[in-house]
Amino acid sequence: MLTEIIIIGDELISGKTRDLNGWYASGCLISCGLEVNEITTVGDNCDTLSAALRTAVKRSRFVIVTGGLGPTDDDLTAEIAAKTLDRPLYLDQGLFDHIKDCTERSGLTWSPNLVKLAWLPRGAKVLDPQGYACGFSISKRDSQLYFLPGVPEQMRQLLDRVVVPDILRRYRPPLVPRHRILKVFGLGESQIADILSGLSDDLKRVMFGFYPSFPETRITITIRGEDLAEIEEELTRAEDKIQGLLGPYVFASGDKTLEAVVGELLTARNVTLSLAESCTGGLIGHRLTSISGSSVYFERGAVVYSDRSKVEMLGVQQHTLDTYGAVSDQTVREMAEGIRRSARTDMGLAVTGIAGPSGGSETKPVGTVFIGLSVRGRVFSSQYRFPGDRQSVKVATAEMALDWVRRYLHGHPFIPGI
Amino acid sequence: MLTEIIIIGDELISGKTRDLNGWYASGCLISCGLEVNEITTVGDNCDTLSAALRTAVKRSRFVIVTGGLGPTDDDLTAEIAAKTLDRPLYLDQGLFDHIKDCTERSGLTWSPNLVKLAWLPRGAKVLDPQGYACGFSISKRDSQLYFLPGVPEQMRQLLDRVVVPDILRRYRPPLVPRHRILKVFGLGESQIADILSGLSDDLKRVMFGFYPSFPETRITITIRGEDLAEIEEELTRAEDKIQGLLGPYVFASGDKTLEAVVGELLTARNVTLSLAESCTGGLIGHRLTSISGSSVYFERGAVVYSDRSKVEMLGVQQHTLDTYGAVSDQTVREMAEGIRRSARTDMGLAVTGIAGPSGGSETKPVGTVFIGLSVRGRVFSSQYRFPGDRQSVKVATAEMALDWVRRYLHGHPFIPGI
Repeated sequence: MLTEIIIIGDELISGKTRDLNGWYASGCLISCGLEVNEITTVGDNCDTLSAALRTAVKRSRFVIVTGGLGPTDDDLTAEIAAKTLDRPLYLDQGLFDHIKDCTERSGLTWSPNLVKLAWLPRGAKVLDPQGYACGFSISKRDSQLYFLPGVPEQMRQLLDRVVVPDILRRYRPPLVPRHRILKVFGLGESQIADILSGLSDDLKRVMFGFYPSFPETRITITIRGEDLAEIEEELTRAEDKIQGLLGPYVFASGDKTLEAVVGELLTARNVTLSLAESCTGGLIGHRLTSISGSSVYFERGAVVYSDRSKVEMLGVQQHTLDTYGAVSDQTVREMAEGIRRSARTDMGLAVTGIAGPSGGSETKPVGTVFIGLSVRGRVFSSQYRFPGDRQSVKVATAEMALDWVRRYLHGHPFIPGI
Repeated sequence: MLTEIIIIGDELISGKTRDLNGWYASGCLISCGLEVNEITTVGDNCDTLSAALRTAVKRSRFVIVTGGLGPTDDDLTAEIAAKTLDRPLYLDQGLFDHIKDCTERSGLTWSPNLVKLAWLPRGAKVLDPQGYACGFSISKRDSQLYFLPGVPEQMRQLLDRVVVPDILRRYRPPLVPRHRILKVFGLGESQIADILSGLSDDLKRVMFGFYPSFPETRITITIRGEDLAEIEEELTRAEDKIQGLLGPYVFASGDKTLEAVVGELLTARNVTLSLAESCTGGLIGHRLTSISGSSVYFERGAVVYSDRSKVEMLGVQQHTLDTYGAVSDQTVREMAEGIRRSARTDMGLAVTGIAGPSGGSETKPVGTVFIGLSVRGRVFSSQYRFPGDRQSVKVATAEMALDWVRRYLHGHPFIPGI
């Protein structure tokens, strides 16, 4: 049962605006058990939109169209739909009265432009006759087309409240797809594929997908079937097998972030944490505090960008900085110890490195990073080398540092450095 | 001269991932003076991708295809292109050697999967034979097709460095569009449109676009024409007029970030800065240190998430916290003073607030934020109320705090609080 989505707007094919409607609508249709064949994005242009509508009506049972329903001159969707689907426009008096009423009740100024919103292709059904957002549906051949506004909030509301229930009334999907997500850090897409090769022989109905999302990789596990209980059981089996093969490289199941996982662990174990950040400049603190409730375990952070601040805020020895440099194993160990002591937390996590593009040397090239973790009288430290630009090095460093906390609390070894 | 873009990936038509490549590629093509006809998003599926390629070859002179070039089983683009365009696959030995070499040099593990990357449709030209990202181009009838990886960084690099120059070699657009960008903070899209209404009468050839990109708004000024010198002059005139009308709300021209503008000002005036962050958790430090060379002006930051850390790291009076609370004008002033003194910098910037979703009260609801700036014996402070979720409040707070530094150094008044 094919469905497709047509997104209309000059701003979307000129690099000015990122589309969110296609993404949202496809997620909705998939969760109904439908398959999305294609998302077509076109400008406010008669020829291309006409062609897209004609193709859609030929091949798809349900078609979601968004955009171009507003009152201004470049809003052409109703007109083009009328011409293409051979349903001349007419003025819907009920809709006109409703729009006029809405405008007055909201204290907005009536503008003659707004009349345009009440001209619909003949046979169109207004989606939400009592609501504020405009939108209509039309049947043509075996297709049901839904025309929605391009404003994301209005589009989502109509889609969720009117369109999805209407689709489910017209069509009962036989094979509901269910999926699980596993999030991995420390293994690349091809390494994961290698490790999991052969797995698909055991799990025939299971479809895998690998989606790198720097610095993480998402694995999706999808099964389509009729018996929901059976599917869920099979998904759990697949998830367990992958977990078994990838071990601690899997840091989350579902859409949970690494900072959320770390936060849950710290909360559950009643462990407090403080940070000493040099090259990440505050990014680790920002991530930790993105979680509501992080004040329970996150006490403080020191962003020690200068040598002087490392000495004054953390008690790093001037001698250490002079002898080994600010980016060194010795320094990161003193940083981790120093912040843990002064904050009086259970753990002190520290990073120092060269994010680039300048500052690298032959022995310590750009991307050289040291991570240190002080906990219960012990200090762990390691050296890494992260590829990429300044932003990538910062992001990879923050991720690795958070992963250290997760692995320590789980009793797993850290991802080895160099 | 039509162009179109085909985006491939199951994750993109199932609501799992938002596409960024279509948006980026269309912006690139438009800036070359080309028109984008359509962006088609399809899954890793033979039938739909084949159909999209066939249609594209029929109607478009240039076709950008992204995704499905990786090493795993679901990467089918080269195979489907070979079949559809009637160009059987062959193993490109030079590419194979290069991939093997790259893998070894980066210290990655060789995996047999990677061989797949070297199978190309006959007649394909490798886009960047010395680079790391894979991608190739093929001519078919009157169309030039470019196949790029789906990983946004790799795709962008190849597009900017190889594909766009190649397109411009093959085609010289008659009316080059030129544009300028102005970045605004503190005024909404409709406020900007109001202020600038009437302007278009003076500047007839100029097209304006307003694109909100939270918490900023970008204004694009576009002129299409033949005489480049004349266009540039007209753009400068338009830019000056807008600057005159919006004044200090414009913080950058071009694609410069606010932290880059602040960094340039601090460097030029030889002013040093330290931070005391509570609700932003390190985000301001992260933004400041995204700029290479920020160590010249950024000395340190204190992420004071607990009351104790505010007292110990900044010397905030326990009495102040007890009497007025951690989120108060009194506290933010002591924070700003405290960090400036202990860091011995010219400026001390502080923020404290309630990012939510919990922690709000009737007098201090979620989104209540105080900003303080200590400089040359004076302390400025103000209260704001930012809408939205935890992340939005953090982002808006960081932006406003950085904007304070910019406005102070320019001698402009701060955006008023409540």
